[in-house]
Amino acid sequence: MSNQLLELESFLQKDQIKTDEESLKYWGKDWTTYFDIKASAIVFPRSTEDVVALVKWARKNKIALVPSGGRTGLSGSAAATQGEVVVSFDQMNKIKDFSPIDQSVIIEPGVVTEALQEFAHKNQLFYPVDFAATGSSQMGGNIATNAGGIKVVRYGLTRDWVAGLKVVTGTGEVLELNNGLVKNATGYDLRHLFIGSEGTLGFITEATIKLAPVPPPMKVLVMAVSGLDAVMKIFAEFKTKTSLVAFEMFSDKALAKVLENTGLPAPLETQSPFYVLSEVETRNEQDEEHVLGVFEKCLEEGWVVDGVLSQSDVQATTFWRYREDISESLAKYSPYKNDIAVTISKVPPFMADLDKVLSTAYPTWEVVWFGHIGDGNLHINILRPEGMSKEEFVKECRKVDVMVFDTVKKYKGSISAEHGVGLTKKSFLTYTRSEAEIGLMKQIKAAFDPDNIMNPGKVI
Amino acid sequence: MSNQLLELESFLQKDQIKTDEESLKYWGKDWTTYFDIKASAIVFPRSTEDVVALVKWARKNKIALVPSGGRTGLSGSAAATQGEVVVSFDQMNKIKDFSPIDQSVIIEPGVVTEALQEFAHKNQLFYPVDFAATGSSQMGGNIATNAGGIKVVRYGLTRDWVAGLKVVTGTGEVLELNNGLVKNATGYDLRHLFIGSEGTLGFITEATIKLAPVPPPMKVLVMAVSGLDAVMKIFAEFKTKTSLVAFEMFSDKALAKVLENTGLPAPLETQSPFYVLSEVETRNEQDEEHVLGVFEKCLEEGWVVDGVLSQSDVQATTFWRYREDISESLAKYSPYKNDIAVTISKVPPFMADLDKVLSTAYPTWEVVWFGHIGDGNLHINILRPEGMSKEEFVKECRKVDVMVFDTVKKYKGSISAEHGVGLTKKSFLTYTRSEAEIGLMKQIKAAFDPDNIMNPGKVI
Repeated sequence: MSNQLLELESFLQKDQIKTDEESLKYWGKDWTTYFDIKASAIVFPRSTEDVVALVKWARKNKIALVPSGGRTGLSGSAAATQGEVVVSFDQMNKIKDFSPIDQSVIIEPGVVTEALQEFAHKNQLFYPVDFAATGSSQMGGNIATNAGGIKVVRYGLTRDWVAGLKVVTGTGEVLELNNGLVKNATGYDLRHLFIGSEGTLGFITEATIKLAPVPPPMKVLVMAVSGLDAVMKIFAEFKTKTSLVAFEMFSDKALAKVLENTGLPAPLETQSPFYVLSEVETRNEQDEEHVLGVFEKCLEEGWVVDGVLSQSDVQATTFWRYREDISESLAKYSPYKNDIAVTISKVPPFMADLDKVLSTAYPTWEVVWFGHIGDGNLHINILRPEGMSKEEFVKECRKVDVMVFDTVKKYKGSISAEHGVGLTKKSFLTYTRSEAEIGLMKQIKAAFDPDNIMNPGKVI
Repeated sequence: MSNQLLELESFLQKDQIKTDEESLKYWGKDWTTYFDIKASAIVFPRSTEDVVALVKWARKNKIALVPSGGRTGLSGSAAATQGEVVVSFDQMNKIKDFSPIDQSVIIEPGVVTEALQEFAHKNQLFYPVDFAATGSSQMGGNIATNAGGIKVVRYGLTRDWVAGLKVVTGTGEVLELNNGLVKNATGYDLRHLFIGSEGTLGFITEATIKLAPVPPPMKVLVMAVSGLDAVMKIFAEFKTKTSLVAFEMFSDKALAKVLENTGLPAPLETQSPFYVLSEVETRNEQDEEHVLGVFEKCLEEGWVVDGVLSQSDVQATTFWRYREDISESLAKYSPYKNDIAVTISKVPPFMADLDKVLSTAYPTWEVVWFGHIGDGNLHINILRPEGMSKEEFVKECRKVDVMVFDTVKKYKGSISAEHGVGLTKKSFLTYTRSEAEIGLMKQIKAAFDPDNIMNPGKVI
């Protein structure tokens, strides 16, 4: 170990420092696989004080720090590629306080999302931000990337559940932001600046998270839909008239791949270009009748061609598989993926426009669409054509990126709906944010992290 | 007019500039009355381009600008006290676009809150941020102060309804922040920095505002409660088990003043130190029965001593008067007022602590409490003792300020729950925000407004 790294032992225990190759590889990255990982050490703080000491040490020695949570990120934000020291929050994973009256918890950043969900459940409450990686993702990472997921229509993003943050900035200063208050009109809300900042302004060492009441029972509807415009009309109808929790869309191609891969029976006899999975709260029988009324209106209007309502929780879970198994069912095609968003109403023209651009450039390629229509968040997947090598496909996909982001820009959309910017989308940031905004972000970064040691080279 | 002011006519119409004494006084201030108003001119931009031209003119001439909305603020944020030019958004009051699918509107900042509420209503939607000044307050001001109000428990603050902002910074740059997107994980969310910044970073010239579905029918309960701890327990019960919209508390003294002033009959026969007004959504009869069940549990537990449920909308409106008429009923005592917040669970010890401090210093003074308990937002009112002159009382109240804010600080609360900082609370900001935070706020201010021309001297 270098002298600088040895100095870590003056304020950390030996078991809080790892420098073996295996650890450097394991903790040095997130779920992205295409970066060369080069970490100098992995450190495991156990307190805010440890993090302060680490930042002061890094500042003195001009060493860059990379924050590391559950390492489930998809943007390379937690990847160490320049010899950084990785700060893992694995050992700061306590739920420190719970207030049933405030309906909130004070947690350390390393608390795994699922552990928080289970804690809430045990206390007759609910943590509603839910996505595929809840079993490993950590709350600190969720906050730093403003994680979204499948219930955003009803419950919003991680941002909406953060009532307070304790952070250590790049100067080693500890800030206690908002202290869990509901109302606090005292100047700029720096808490919101940290949410989604991907560790570039400072590291989160504690968070006050709000919890929701336990949700009422749910019903899941799968509907075959005549076209994208009808999808929009069904959405507006369900959003205004029911207590809508999720509204997911997938194309016939996506469904075909799921049926092929899983052996599940088709949900409906009718074939349609698009399908919608809608989850709604039904507190009682009257609610249920009301939901059926909304569904029947959509049928009468001709928006829905065919549909089915879950008759049990088991059936609801099966219905969800038509949507949730898409990614896995496409995996063998090693598809090009992108996670983009436009405002909800622009989904149909955006998809039509991008489909046209892609079919002109690549007439034989198979494009598979699915997404959280309720948030305008689309997942585009392009399957690698048979016979094309992975290398050639990846090369071609760099051109596809530009086509996708050009179209996103045309519709004033987002090049990263929920996966963040990190390293993967840094060079495309101008497609969503203006030069003036990026200039201001850089000035803000310099105020919080004047030595550029907090996750440098990420986002901006 | 000075040459500098004459220059305004090169890019504004004559009827967009006012310099007569009456106008200077009228547009030069908000609802606060104790500042000496000294405005140089009032200007009325009609477009983002007008605002850009104004900022560039101000920058060149080193003239300070004060933004002005409905002038209903209570912190002096829109008061011109140093010869500033006031930028009134009265002529930028159009609803420019409405999307029923996105359930959002694009509005100019001068749209009056009530006009937006009415527009939403006409389109079978709902704008839920609601407070006393909705008839005159403008949306730009609501956003700049992150207005709250009486339905925060259910619908959150103005912040939660802003999907996008167009702003002009202190350099004359136009930023389009978030473009109405639901999901957008592309770096620092500058939109949230502007919300609550009281015009010190730049001026809002357009906003995308989300609308909610029309709420179901409501029931209002008035309950006599045995003590503050019981208030907390009732809150937790209603918050987790019903669809709670408002949860307001007032003391027996507050109720007595309302009855005395309005001639309303007492809501309940039982006398209690505290009363709670709770508003809940009831979609159907089953919901209503469920709410009654929750109420009965609170009775059985002994938390509620007596209570009454509204049997009609007319009765619900009458019940609200017990809470809404408090301010007016206290007005003749020209009371000391403060708008403060702590986390909900800290309300009882905070109130007990402050009551003790005040009764020790002023044993004969009458302290009247009420507030939005569901957000930890308390309104403390101290009545001017009979025989004490206004001047003497105001002087004494400066000492009360320090006692109040010392106690707020002890409980990590907010010195301004929803009225902002402006001029009135600027010198107390350190009671809620740390020196480090204030230092960072100043650096952020300098990045957006390097010449310090955007509402200078306010907040920080």
